Amino acid sequence: MNTSFRGKHFITCQDWSRDDLDMVFEVAKYLKMKHALNEPSNLLKDKTAFLMFFEESTRTRNSMEAGITQLGGHAHFIDTSTMQINHGESPKDTAEVLSSFGDAICVRNCFYGIGNEYLRTLAKYSKVPILSLQDDVYHPMQVLADMMTIQERFGNPRKLKVAISWAYATSHAKPLSVPQSQILLFARYGMDVTVAAPKEFPLMPDIVDTAYENADLNGGSLKFVDNMEEAFRDADIVIPKNWGGFLGVDNPTTSEGKTQMKANLEKYKDWICDEKLMSITKKHSIYMHALPADRGREVVDSVIDGRHSIVIPEAENRIHTAKAIMALTMGGR
Amino acid sequence: MNTSFRGKHFITCQDWSRDDLDMVFEVAKYLKMKHALNEPSNLLKDKTAFLMFFEESTRTRNSMEAGITQLGGHAHFIDTSTMQINHGESPKDTAEVLSSFGDAICVRNCFYGIGNEYLRTLAKYSKVPILSLQDDVYHPMQVLADMMTIQERFGNPRKLKVAISWAYATSHAKPLSVPQSQILLFARYGMDVTVAAPKEFPLMPDIVDTAYENADLNGGSLKFVDNMEEAFRDADIVIPKNWGGFLGVDNPTTSEGKTQMKANLEKYKDWICDEKLMSITKKHSIYMHALPADRGREVVDSVIDGRHSIVIPEAENRIHTAKAIMALTMGGR
Amino acid sequence: MNTSFRGKHFITCQDWSRDDLDMVFEVAKYLKMKHALNEPSNLLKDKTAFLMFFEESTRTRNSMEAGITQLGGHAHFIDTSTMQINHGESPKDTAEVLSSFGDAICVRNCFYGIGNEYLRTLAKYSKVPILSLQDDVYHPMQVLADMMTIQERFGNPRKLKVAISWAYATSHAKPLSVPQSQILLFARYGMDVTVAAPKEFPLMPDIVDTAYENADLNGGSLKFVDNMEEAFRDADIVIPKNWGGFLGVDNPTTSEGKTQMKANLEKYKDWICDEKLMSITKKHSIYMHALPADRGREVVDSVIDGRHSIVIPEAENRIHTAKAIMALTMGGR
Repeated sequence: MNTSFRGKHFITCQDWSRDDLDMVFEVAKYLKMKHALNEPSNLLKDKTAFLMFFEESTRTRNSMEAGITQLGGHAHFIDTSTMQINHGESPKDTAEVLSSFGDAICVRNCFYGIGNEYLRTLAKYSKVPILSLQDDVYHPMQVLADMMTIQERFGNPRKLKVAISWAYATSHAKPLSVPQSQILLFARYGMDVTVAAPKEFPLMPDIVDTAYENADLNGGSLKFVDNMEEAFRDADIVIPKNWGGFLGVDNPTTSEGKTQMKANLEKYKDWICDEKLMSITKKHSIYMHALPADRGREVVDSVIDGRHSIVIPEAENRIHTAKAIMALTMGGR
Repeated sequence: MNTSFRGKHFITCQDWSRDDLDMVFEVAKYLKMKHALNEPSNLLKDKTAFLMFFEESTRTRNSMEAGITQLGGHAHFIDTSTMQINHGESPKDTAEVLSSFGDAICVRNCFYGIGNEYLRTLAKYSKVPILSLQDDVYHPMQVLADMMTIQERFGNPRKLKVAISWAYATSHAKPLSVPQSQILLFARYGMDVTVAAPKEFPLMPDIVDTAYENADLNGGSLKFVDNMEEAFRDADIVIPKNWGGFLGVDNPTTSEGKTQMKANLEKYKDWICDEKLMSITKKHSIYMHALPADRGREVVDSVIDGRHSIVIPEAENRIHTAKAIMALTMGGR
Repeated sequence: MNTSFRGKHFITCQDWSRDDLDMVFEVAKYLKMKHALNEPSNLLKDKTAFLMFFEESTRTRNSMEAGITQLGGHAHFIDTSTMQINHGESPKDTAEVLSSFGDAICVRNCFYGIGNEYLRTLAKYSKVPILSLQDDVYHPMQVLADMMTIQERFGNPRKLKVAISWAYATSHAKPLSVPQSQILLFARYGMDVTVAAPKEFPLMPDIVDTAYENADLNGGSLKFVDNMEEAFRDADIVIPKNWGGFLGVDNPTTSEGKTQMKANLEKYKDWICDEKLMSITKKHSIYMHALPADRGREVVDSVIDGRHSIVIPEAENRIHTAKAIMALTMGGR
């Protein structure tokens, strides 16, 4: 395994080797046990992580901030509307200045066509690691927690059958980043991945290509279907979740595009995860969701609060994996 | 005295026994002295308190955040508009997730008919203590500081005469929580409580009933009058403060209700605490206010800045009592 | 040198003696070296600084917050819209309450005609130091970083020729505080200061008078010109930066005043720092800017990103000087 992580950017798991990621999971398990024992840790004593949020957050902000506290450091929660970005501050200036003050710059920017580009520009100019808190393409922190949770339940994930399904929701147009990060990483760990989605809700073609390659190189598989049943049948793991139809319209940033996205969405109100769907999965199957779930639309209460659901342990693993990434990139040798 | 507090919710003092509260005051005095000596404390080393604010705050936020820093831990100040609550996050999810990350969830939610219910729901699902930072019914942190301040001035509060009076203010429609918490707690400590208010500004009937019971069981007394003079005459302690006329109209959440509340308010501009009123209190009487006061409307400057006023020591005790509650519920055995 | 700083307000460098300031630079150098060595420091163990921001910030907030973390303490970032100021909280109450909770009150309030007055009022009532994070008149934290950077490059600044020039920008109407703090301090250190600005963009007359006096008493010089060339010719240091034309109109707070300010601004689009201007400075000259710069309007990219520019080391020195001020005023003997 790799033992040199200090200063490494974490924008997508795809930039990290399988060895790198295995070390992350090792460290996450170790930190989780230490926390259960209430053993103090000073791995990031008096170090600073900047948390720049262009969007709302509950789990991500609080797992990062509580996580670094447990390691002896401190996070600045920064609502970017309180920064000088509207006063003409370029990403180059932000990266150079903040990296001269602290030890990691962590960013959530999910604006479609903008977020990942913004993080990549910061990475070009920063002296300290850029850690993604989700962008328009990837959500690497979430998928780490998902994989840790799967390994806790099943051990080696090879050949597990996972259903990643689109679901109906009205709460807001969600980024593609969660399912995209999942198909990329699950395929690398040799899982059999089925994605179910209506035709107007595709994922990004280059991500899909890379995921096929990942599957091919690692003994996994990937296929796309147009209904939930086919994906759920005999699945070990189901992850039904809404994402936006950005790629199913001509231009998702225009008002015509938005109207069309909304019209496409309304055609698929019956894409909800309910008990009937769960009954065709394996008996031991687990239901996962990155939260917040749109209850009554993405999933019925009896499933998300029921025996298959592991959404709370999954959310808890956000803090253990976040601590592992911070400890390695900000403090590691 | 009780010595087991870890994990105990603090939503109203009424849920805590007299023994429990006496231990809180003991600990607050001890931590105040340690702070004066500049003796460091590590009672909450690297622990996290989430501070969720649905409304503005100065004293509460800063006493909690500076308080936990002095104990070696860290608070997340969370303006709830930056959370995922608008994206469909239920109180159940919030409680389960945050309680898996940190060590206490502290909440201010004063929305009328909603706040206390929200805190009670969190308490149902949280693995860590829910600490109220004020809701629509109670403000337990404030009343602890008030009682500590009274005990510092007078020793045993039994038989002290306290005037809790409504006063005019235009700044905003204030919750009922401060006077309600005061009548409940002061009656339990055997004080003689007089509440003065115009008829359109009643307190909640079930709170009043419980306060009468508290007085009865503990040798205190409680009465209601419709003018300030009667309450102030010979008082040891006066607490004139505005509260909203939510219960003096049919429905305070409709626009008709709001108009009527405003009209009711404007009838009582002369309910102001001035020097003439202070002159009929006991010579040694103290003037208290939770702050911010609406100067020139609730109280004249010469009183709030004058010899009777102890509003600054009262505010300072917010941090000592807050530290006691956090130390006991987050770190205690 | 003075060795007694505890509790000293820092609202303008003008209130601090030359000896005081020299100690600040000593401490800043020492803390910078310690940080480079990764040596921990506990100078402000568990102490609290309140950071009250009435306006946006990147460098100031993050240098203060990361800085106090490196010293073992904690800063509360406070967007003042989340405080009770709109509920009638007076500066007196804010100062008395916060100073009973924590160890310094740090404030950015740049509202024209209001900010400095607000800080002075806080200072009157606070038991702990008031540290300015910029007001409408002064930006002492910025000018400390500027002077530290100049001393690092040139040693003793006596007789260095510095051009402080107005420049065009559209991002927002910037306070006068940066150039005003610079002419005051640079003159005290014996520098030859030339200010270039269009006639509609004057600085405050009493500040200019004091700066002339500073120059006179300390062997420096100060002059005002109406074009960039004259200031830049043979300069060792150039600091071209926009500021608002508040004093070039009858009343800058009315809408007529604002329209007139905008019209005045648009006359001077050619006041931009470009390579041609840099070519008439000394070969070793340095380009400084407090950031964020309005790229393409105040300065061309090839200058701010070019060989003369030291804006990033200048920004980095914000944290070292901020730590020095906090360590001395909050923790010093």
